[in-house]
Amino acid sequence: MNSVSLWNRYKTHLFHDPETGLMIDISRMNFDDGFLAAMEPAMQKAFAEMAALESGVIANPDEGRMVGHYWLRTPSLAPAGGIASEIADTMWKIKEFASAVHSGKITAPDGRPFRNILIVGIGGSALGPQFIADALGSASDPIAPYFLDNTDPDGMDRVLSQIGPELATTMTVVISKSGGTKETRNGMIEAKAAYHRAGLYFPRFAVAVTGAGSELDRTATESGWLARFPMWDWVGGRTSVTSAVGLLPAALQGIDIEGMMEGARICDAMTRHTVTTQNPAALLALMWHHATGGRGSRDMVILPYKDRLLLFSRYLQQLIMESIGKELDRDGNVVCQGISVYGNKGSTDQHAYVQQLREGVNNFFVTFVEVLLDRTGISLPVEQGVTSGDYLAGFLQGTRTALSDKGRESITITIPEVSARTVGMLIALFERAVGLYSSLININAYHQPGVEAGKKAAGTVLALQAEVIAHLSNTETPQTADEIAAAIGHPEAAETIFRTLLHAVANTDHGVGMERATPLTDSRFVIE
Amino acid sequence: MNSVSLWNRYKTHLFHDPETGLMIDISRMNFDDGFLAAMEPAMQKAFAEMAALESGVIANPDEGRMVGHYWLRTPSLAPAGGIASEIADTMWKIKEFASAVHSGKITAPDGRPFRNILIVGIGGSALGPQFIADALGSASDPIAPYFLDNTDPDGMDRVLSQIGPELATTMTVVISKSGGTKETRNGMIEAKAAYHRAGLYFPRFAVAVTGAGSELDRTATESGWLARFPMWDWVGGRTSVTSAVGLLPAALQGIDIEGMMEGARICDAMTRHTVTTQNPAALLALMWHHATGGRGSRDMVILPYKDRLLLFSRYLQQLIMESIGKELDRDGNVVCQGISVYGNKGSTDQHAYVQQLREGVNNFFVTFVEVLLDRTGISLPVEQGVTSGDYLAGFLQGTRTALSDKGRESITITIPEVSARTVGMLIALFERAVGLYSSLININAYHQPGVEAGKKAAGTVLALQAEVIAHLSNTETPQTADEIAAAIGHPEAAETIFRTLLHAVANTDHGVGMERATPLTDSRFVIE
Repeated sequence: MNSVSLWNRYKTHLFHDPETGLMIDISRMNFDDGFLAAMEPAMQKAFAEMAALESGVIANPDEGRMVGHYWLRTPSLAPAGGIASEIADTMWKIKEFASAVHSGKITAPDGRPFRNILIVGIGGSALGPQFIADALGSASDPIAPYFLDNTDPDGMDRVLSQIGPELATTMTVVISKSGGTKETRNGMIEAKAAYHRAGLYFPRFAVAVTGAGSELDRTATESGWLARFPMWDWVGGRTSVTSAVGLLPAALQGIDIEGMMEGARICDAMTRHTVTTQNPAALLALMWHHATGGRGSRDMVILPYKDRLLLFSRYLQQLIMESIGKELDRDGNVVCQGISVYGNKGSTDQHAYVQQLREGVNNFFVTFVEVLLDRTGISLPVEQGVTSGDYLAGFLQGTRTALSDKGRESITITIPEVSARTVGMLIALFERAVGLYSSLININAYHQPGVEAGKKAAGTVLALQAEVIAHLSNTETPQTADEIAAAIGHPEAAETIFRTLLHAVANTDHGVGMERATPLTDSRFVIE
Repeated sequence: MNSVSLWNRYKTHLFHDPETGLMIDISRMNFDDGFLAAMEPAMQKAFAEMAALESGVIANPDEGRMVGHYWLRTPSLAPAGGIASEIADTMWKIKEFASAVHSGKITAPDGRPFRNILIVGIGGSALGPQFIADALGSASDPIAPYFLDNTDPDGMDRVLSQIGPELATTMTVVISKSGGTKETRNGMIEAKAAYHRAGLYFPRFAVAVTGAGSELDRTATESGWLARFPMWDWVGGRTSVTSAVGLLPAALQGIDIEGMMEGARICDAMTRHTVTTQNPAALLALMWHHATGGRGSRDMVILPYKDRLLLFSRYLQQLIMESIGKELDRDGNVVCQGISVYGNKGSTDQHAYVQQLREGVNNFFVTFVEVLLDRTGISLPVEQGVTSGDYLAGFLQGTRTALSDKGRESITITIPEVSARTVGMLIALFERAVGLYSSLININAYHQPGVEAGKKAAGTVLALQAEVIAHLSNTETPQTADEIAAAIGHPEAAETIFRTLLHAVANTDHGVGMERATPLTDSRFVIE
């Protein structure tokens, strides 16, 4: 296709919303003329299912839950039962609390204002807050965010040493719906111990975001934590960023959460449109279907040309892959669905892997995110009449063209600037696109049955570890993994036992020693 | 396969190096019994090609260059011509310089010690230093690193505002082989302007890492920068982390660069082994071939269970995708090779996309990176007899098992700890695996012909922008993109002009205004 035809294709398919400035360009996706018409019945069905979901049907049937993240932005849509007032109350409480912290009404126990928050959470309880903090934070924020998002001991030590003596003015926000997520529980225990070592009384620094009546909720209540904020069973982790999960840390950091919610609300309204070509989320869902054959046959490369949007791809990785990556469709057929998502930022990634995108295996489509505003204030010229931002814009256009010239597909999403409003809009846009796409391919986007298996298997490993250590504690004879496995009646678990013991030997906590042998798997273990 | 058979498979194929503790477990890759034997002739050919490369043949024929990153670790291997002494001299100079900065012999112009470095680079000149800084840095380092790795104006403003008044004790290290990389050039200009605004004389803060005689080298010489360090044409950007590119920032930060080099050197020696089963890089290359059919048919998911290795996947994304992602093989056949690489860290990613990995589209293989040492010092129990690190180890094993149970393949690389030595080893391991794999699939891993196209296309965009602005400056009549395109004799460029003008309008630098129309593509532009 020559550039004039491409320009016509661009003009034909360009989505532009005058109110927000949002633009979606699908002209570099090579769908043919009949595609949109052929998909229209499925798209209309998806709109109907989305309307039912928004009205409160059980959209997540195997967990028996409603799916209500859209209500967070428009509480009047929520079904009866006090949901609307709970949402409004929580929003009010978050703003009150953040304002009290900023004004010094709520302070650290020594009377100094809080300067940092340490957010303890994982998955949906970390990625959203991390993305918001990085996209909208600045050096002049009243409060700086830190995260414990893993159960890595050294990782936690490192964050705590970055905070250092400022722990005395650091509020810890523990985020876990069930309160049972082990990484978060461990992070909370390690954080609490750090406060204790510093002579600080943890409950006076601690805030919980959790489901009513959860283990964490009980801990927070009984110990008299500073505050508690609710999570609801109708908000999934990966769509929780516009609940207290995302809003509380953002508000504390000084980010305009009303703006975020407004952007999401406007985008929600825009993406309820049932005229497909006027619905940007529907356009995205259709392009995903086109690019991946509705079967995840291509990866989605997210390339925002803006440093602040670096974590957007990680956020979308969870939102899209955990929602769409399912073995069974809604009728129980094995479909092994999914779309793999990766990316960092442009033009940086042009110097990393655009070589492969342009020349190599054509197993992807790119989603460029273009931001029109370069910076606050004017730019100095880096050459006669050219700014750094002109270069950034030029690189995006150049790469889009270079890929297109080689038959590689791309979508370009344009927003006027990175602001609370546009970030809220992007979040809502992709939430809706995921919902619509899941209808197109007939899967449940709102559960994650595959996550349990890894947790269960990990539980088995830890139970075995306890048995092995108990066994070794009762013998002085060094034994191989095979011998230990036989002795504790788990001959099938020799490999797990061997690998568990290698880890135990490397750390002093369990007192396990090793007589190395060749091959290594013949080594003997003993508690010294 | 039951767990006893899997244990036997584990024992049969486990690679373990007693000196370093490196282990490679390929038992969860489903290659059949004949695979290794069938690949052996190709593997031996790859070893021979690698030996030739290390001896200094032109391994990058279309650029007419030798490929010498292995010499950096073992200068005695370098061919004649003074290369060995240049390497040794540079290493000595880096250590001398870092030591002079740490001891206060070299200070900021106001006599205070340097506290930060601002590294300006992109691609190979940023990813390696970023990975090293994050993997090996700590809160007690003498110097903290910041990066400008893009031409995003707001992104640069943000980093500079994080540094704030400490700019007066911040050394800027500009890294660019040719000196012609526009993002880096722009970053340097913006950084220089920031020093100027702060009343600081940039050359007294500036250090160059660049090729002798490059534009940057001349600037540094003429302006009397603090120091210059060489880049050589026989070191490619994506394998430059053990040259001054990675070593200078690391040494300044206080990282043990001798340890890094030692780890890389030991791994180089280990991966020269021509007995395939005793060569861990060969095992990786063979597994990549098995998993992707030698055609990139599956993605490589990198999952280090360690916060410090978070950036390893980004580093490998460049190393692998830019090396392997090629349109043509060495005989000129169109092959469109590549392996897509993504990942962040475990167990965090278990709460993001392991749902899809376990249940969804089976288009990947995982490379787990396991670190045996949990932390410095002992751990508190988070439950009776269980530490946070036991959980981390348990989650890795659990996920490995849960994936394997569903027929999803994985490699597990185990290292004893994260240290300068093991990080150097991991870098060398993957460099060698990439080299061997490129021989197996008959491609040139050492050029990047596809990168130029995007840069050229960007150059066209910027040239057009200049023409458009010149044209608009000479008329008072608002015009559409189509009219402007026709007027400047580039009717084929209407779309590029339209998109360029949208960006220009959003920023005040060029004084371009817009009369919005519906559809948006009919809008008129004018210089006000």
